[in-house]
Amino acid sequence: MRFATYTADCETFYGAVTDAGMIALSPHFPDWPTLRDVIAADGLPALAVAAEGKPVTHTDFTYEIPIPNPEKIICVGVNFPDRNAEYKDGSAQPKHMSLFPRFPRSFTGAERPLIRPPENHTLDYEGEVAVVIGKAGRRIRPEDAYDHIAALTLANEGTIRDWVRHAKFNVTQGKNWDNSGAIGPWLVPFTDAAQLDDARIVTRVNGEVRQDDTLARMMFPIREEIAYISTFTTLQPGDVIITGTPTGAGARFDPPKYLAPGDVVEVEVEGIGTLRNTVEDEA
Amino acid sequence: MRFATYTADCETFYGAVTDAGMIALSPHFPDWPTLRDVIAADGLPALAVAAEGKPVTHTDFTYEIPIPNPEKIICVGVNFPDRNAEYKDGSAQPKHMSLFPRFPRSFTGAERPLIRPPENHTLDYEGEVAVVIGKAGRRIRPEDAYDHIAALTLANEGTIRDWVRHAKFNVTQGKNWDNSGAIGPWLVPFTDAAQLDDARIVTRVNGEVRQDDTLARMMFPIREEIAYISTFTTLQPGDVIITGTPTGAGARFDPPKYLAPGDVVEVEVEGIGTLRNTVEDEA
Repeated sequence: MRFATYTADCETFYGAVTDAGMIALSPHFPDWPTLRDVIAADGLPALAVAAEGKPVTHTDFTYEIPIPNPEKIICVGVNFPDRNAEYKDGSAQPKHMSLFPRFPRSFTGAERPLIRPPENHTLDYEGEVAVVIGKAGRRIRPEDAYDHIAALTLANEGTIRDWVRHAKFNVTQGKNWDNSGAIGPWLVPFTDAAQLDDARIVTRVNGEVRQDDTLARMMFPIREEIAYISTFTTLQPGDVIITGTPTGAGARFDPPKYLAPGDVVEVEVEGIGTLRNTVEDEA
Repeated sequence: MRFATYTADCETFYGAVTDAGMIALSPHFPDWPTLRDVIAADGLPALAVAAEGKPVTHTDFTYEIPIPNPEKIICVGVNFPDRNAEYKDGSAQPKHMSLFPRFPRSFTGAERPLIRPPENHTLDYEGEVAVVIGKAGRRIRPEDAYDHIAALTLANEGTIRDWVRHAKFNVTQGKNWDNSGAIGPWLVPFTDAAQLDDARIVTRVNGEVRQDDTLARMMFPIREEIAYISTFTTLQPGDVIITGTPTGAGARFDPPKYLAPGDVVEVEVEGIGTLRNTVEDEA
């Protein structure tokens, strides 16, 4: 079962995704206005039950990011062994993970264009798995971490590469251009550790494989991400952790292979789906 | 006129601040549940009118952060000339400002304790002026920037100093401990450029002056902050920009003067007020 947030007829819904289209469910759950509220109420199973036997309500729709209003979106940087080497600064593997927040408006939904701004054209892709927190917690132990995940989705952690190093510290301004990345297309309930532990992630640009790795090779596994992040901040239902990208972003090629209008980027993980986006220059 | 968000009798209100106590206004504006909604509707003048002649409703209350649910809180780092020198890394003044987001839960309200966690005791203060965006905008020109500010408040951008340099990049985990900083006590409507341009900011710990500077000395003035930030992200009503701290944080002393339980920290700007917090070890 898959659940998405989408817009149809100028209205935003959430619902169940079928091959024939969307089954709107939000009209049946007025107490849960968004998928964040559904997750806070542990309501994904109720959505699944409600979808049974219902007809498709929308075949013409636009994907939104699955959780439109998370309290926080936290990204993990430089989390695959070869990525630290990519920086060529002679540094050893860092002791702690690098973390940076992104604002929801820096992401668009699936099947929609990533926006290349006029100020800078070094728009780059980063395919990643995103986990959505279901149960709040602080100082969560690694062995308990998976109990706090409600659902999985995909992210293209699109970046304006030149702006990542604009300032002395922090990547904020390279990582937060409006609609420069994407999350989606949908949420898949997290029910089995193998969904994460054995996952292989592949990113393609115009069909060419650029990133291809397995989550098992992460320097900081997802269990440790949740444990470390929750040391300093209380994780809340609907929070999104974007877990890190493999080697192979466009900036790492010589010359770099940045995204250009007309490109199609796909991030695929078996069992979750494919997040597909086009690229457009800002209107 | 000053406006605060506060809790009394287990309920959260916003209202007008008087020397005798709070005049609850939120019950009169059901369409504006929070000060963020008030500001999005350009409603501060309406609050001022509504407060006239009304009696104090609460004398026993707890301050909350003024905007409880901003879409984003963006902090500007290393923004006074002597602060770049404090890093002693031989670097020239950076070309662009350093920016990092903080989550609302990393801040508590005025008169409440900053929390020192058991994991690390390098809790430090940073006194700052915070501006609250009133009018949405993207690519705002510096000369128009002040038109986008609805109100001013104060921040103690409390930091777990050791954790700022935990990772290879980004200060996220040193800047986002729950209740490690404070915002408040209230909002003052922004009506005159002199409120910012001539402002002097003083931070005291147990009465001892630690920071004392004027906003006129900022390397990146507030007009430029708004212009630069809005280049990449659309600023929204209720967004908070924490504009940078002068030299004199505890980490810069030898030996460092970190905060300890029982300390009292005050951030004062004439015309805005004083943000006072105590310090406690986490329960």
